[in-house]
Amino acid sequence: MSKINITAEEALAYHREPSPGKFQIVASKPLRTPRDLSLAYSPGVAHPVHAIAKCPDAAYNYTVKGNMVAVISNGTAILGLGNLGALASKPVMEGKAALFKLFADINAIDIELDSEKVDELVKAIHLMQPTFGGINLEDIKAPECFLIEEQLKEILDIPVFHDDQHGTAVVCAAGLINALKLAGKTIDNAKIVLNGAGAAGIACLKLLHAMGARPENTILCDSQGTVWSGRENGMNRWKSELAVETSARTLPEALVGADVFIGVSVKGALTKQMVCAMGNDPIIFALANPDPEITPEEALEARSDAIVATGRSDYPNQVNNVLCFPYIFRGALDAKAREINDEMKIACAVALAHLARATVPGSVKRIHGKDLSFGRDYIIPSPFDPRLLSEVAPAVVRAAFETGASRNAIDLDEYQNALRLRMV
Amino acid sequence: MSKINITAEEALAYHREPSPGKFQIVASKPLRTPRDLSLAYSPGVAHPVHAIAKCPDAAYNYTVKGNMVAVISNGTAILGLGNLGALASKPVMEGKAALFKLFADINAIDIELDSEKVDELVKAIHLMQPTFGGINLEDIKAPECFLIEEQLKEILDIPVFHDDQHGTAVVCAAGLINALKLAGKTIDNAKIVLNGAGAAGIACLKLLHAMGARPENTILCDSQGTVWSGRENGMNRWKSELAVETSARTLPEALVGADVFIGVSVKGALTKQMVCAMGNDPIIFALANPDPEITPEEALEARSDAIVATGRSDYPNQVNNVLCFPYIFRGALDAKAREINDEMKIACAVALAHLARATVPGSVKRIHGKDLSFGRDYIIPSPFDPRLLSEVAPAVVRAAFETGASRNAIDLDEYQNALRLRMV
Repeated sequence: MSKINITAEEALAYHREPSPGKFQIVASKPLRTPRDLSLAYSPGVAHPVHAIAKCPDAAYNYTVKGNMVAVISNGTAILGLGNLGALASKPVMEGKAALFKLFADINAIDIELDSEKVDELVKAIHLMQPTFGGINLEDIKAPECFLIEEQLKEILDIPVFHDDQHGTAVVCAAGLINALKLAGKTIDNAKIVLNGAGAAGIACLKLLHAMGARPENTILCDSQGTVWSGRENGMNRWKSELAVETSARTLPEALVGADVFIGVSVKGALTKQMVCAMGNDPIIFALANPDPEITPEEALEARSDAIVATGRSDYPNQVNNVLCFPYIFRGALDAKAREINDEMKIACAVALAHLARATVPGSVKRIHGKDLSFGRDYIIPSPFDPRLLSEVAPAVVRAAFETGASRNAIDLDEYQNALRLRMV
Repeated sequence: MSKINITAEEALAYHREPSPGKFQIVASKPLRTPRDLSLAYSPGVAHPVHAIAKCPDAAYNYTVKGNMVAVISNGTAILGLGNLGALASKPVMEGKAALFKLFADINAIDIELDSEKVDELVKAIHLMQPTFGGINLEDIKAPECFLIEEQLKEILDIPVFHDDQHGTAVVCAAGLINALKLAGKTIDNAKIVLNGAGAAGIACLKLLHAMGARPENTILCDSQGTVWSGRENGMNRWKSELAVETSARTLPEALVGADVFIGVSVKGALTKQMVCAMGNDPIIFALANPDPEITPEEALEARSDAIVATGRSDYPNQVNNVLCFPYIFRGALDAKAREINDEMKIACAVALAHLARATVPGSVKRIHGKDLSFGRDYIIPSPFDPRLLSEVAPAVVRAAFETGASRNAIDLDEYQNALRLRMV
């Protein structure tokens, strides 16, 4: 698959023509006659109003709330572009909203909030809770993103999900499940080095711990080297929680004999020499975007037994958040889940990993030129695999139910069948 | 035209089936191929992000901001139903959003804010300013609605419009222009009594003053009688601004010889006796909903020379906000107006009045069974008159330009022609 080249003018024209922006709002009910208007608005609308006033859960029956997600950002960490402010983040958030609809039939709207203050952001989002079935936080810089999500999870009774953290973590975990399988290793014995202690890195490592990776086997690194117990420079409470006893002080030292490298850091952070020092069948997830920590070509030159993933669509094994957020929210919304918990994230990762391994029906063997046969070049499903919705969302619903996060009992077989039909 | 009867189950089913709620969000750009995704999201989206970071106004070129209105409520004054809370207001706000689209092709989204505190609401709305081209406040109780709107107008540079106040005021003013014409009277000499000192009543009276009604000729009444200079009971700063020197202490006293009664109060507030005491061709706008201050039948029994309007669709001359908010926002958005000022409201009222008087092209002589010939039974245009958009919005744009509220120079003829085609 070759790289897609896009010029600035093509991208701007796409956003501008024939009308600015990437989505629109359309009525989903007939609105042609005076009678329609009387049903949709005064006086008919009084009936659902009263029903909801009497029983708040009725909002899920009579309004879009249950299928509506807010994509919220303050623009402090836009893609790889940095802090460009709330307004400038709008094209990204609109794009995300469009992807929610495209991949999971979820209505999503972007909300850009012009503040960098945690308490202001938390308050504003708290107030708008009645409007939405779930909150997708996006492109908010660390460490504020941790505090905002933490506080919102505490006070809201709808799912809150910071995609830069957990979307990356879930898809990374899915790829890692399959990579370990191919390498003949298990997560509880794997020695994992994670480079980059920002939002995504911290979330990845925490999710791997929840999946059975042993803390003493996982070393976090940042620009100052390893995060070891006792280190004092450049620490914060999130790094401290992940600090381990180790004699390694640098990334190269940490990588000696390691099974897994996960980079959510910067171009060039991983060298061929470091790859050479890793254990057999080294697993290398070089996720820095657009330029990975090491290119797949270089990694494979250093070690032909390497299993490599990146964040890019023009290499095999793209760790792409779009594999997670539409489906984890689809499941969470349909379960009327109070939250998206670790078990739901793990269920999502496991389902994604399973889908990449599953025998592929003839008709979808190749999608957009990509071969869908499981192997070192296909450990993560294609974002265009039409089975994603019906395979992943039910796994999330099941986990929500089993962990008591669900407010909705669903027949999973019926649900899966309905999802199979939904996107046709 | 007969009254439309709707059962609770019909209204609930309309809101529930086939999927809950009244609108959905759909992509407005192609999203089929990996290339589409690269344009809509990473990496292509970086180009509009940079363009907006460099020049904030570019958001109008590359995002939906310029055609996006937030319909915001806290549910403290839902329709005529009272304070039922933010969540219960959602069906009303979704309905309003659908009407924005239907009548003026504006994308609108409801935001329900769970707070009754002015400062919290103002702060939350202020933070979300980057998202929207305009803010429509809805069903927020007085006096908080005055404070919220006042403060937002001060700090936001996009239009803020509390529809319960100004939408009612504009359509009422439109009807009054035509009623006075039929009665052979002028606004600067008319003696006007306005009963009901809530959000709509105060806004109506202030707009009439801006249109030339003389304060000394206008008497405001509330449940305690007239609002006279020196009255101390049950006053607030908005009533005080409208207090006048008068010896009348009650509504019946105020109405003796009056030319105009406008009621935004309660059923039965106006009696036949009071109507009998009014001047010639008495103009009676009995706008309480669903039951007017006096029925048109009773008013005409008392005085066959009366000109009567109500808030109901089953009587002639319905004062219906849907005649105003779609078009005043269409004009304000297209002018990229910083605000919706009095001149824009008056322009909207004048254009509406003119449309009711205009010779009607043969094809639209009757709409949904209503005769569109100007006269005592047709002083306000039908909400289904297809000319509304192309006649009213350009008048608003012109006023925005003339008052310096506009940030966008528009060729009005071209604009009007484009609007004529837009809704076909």
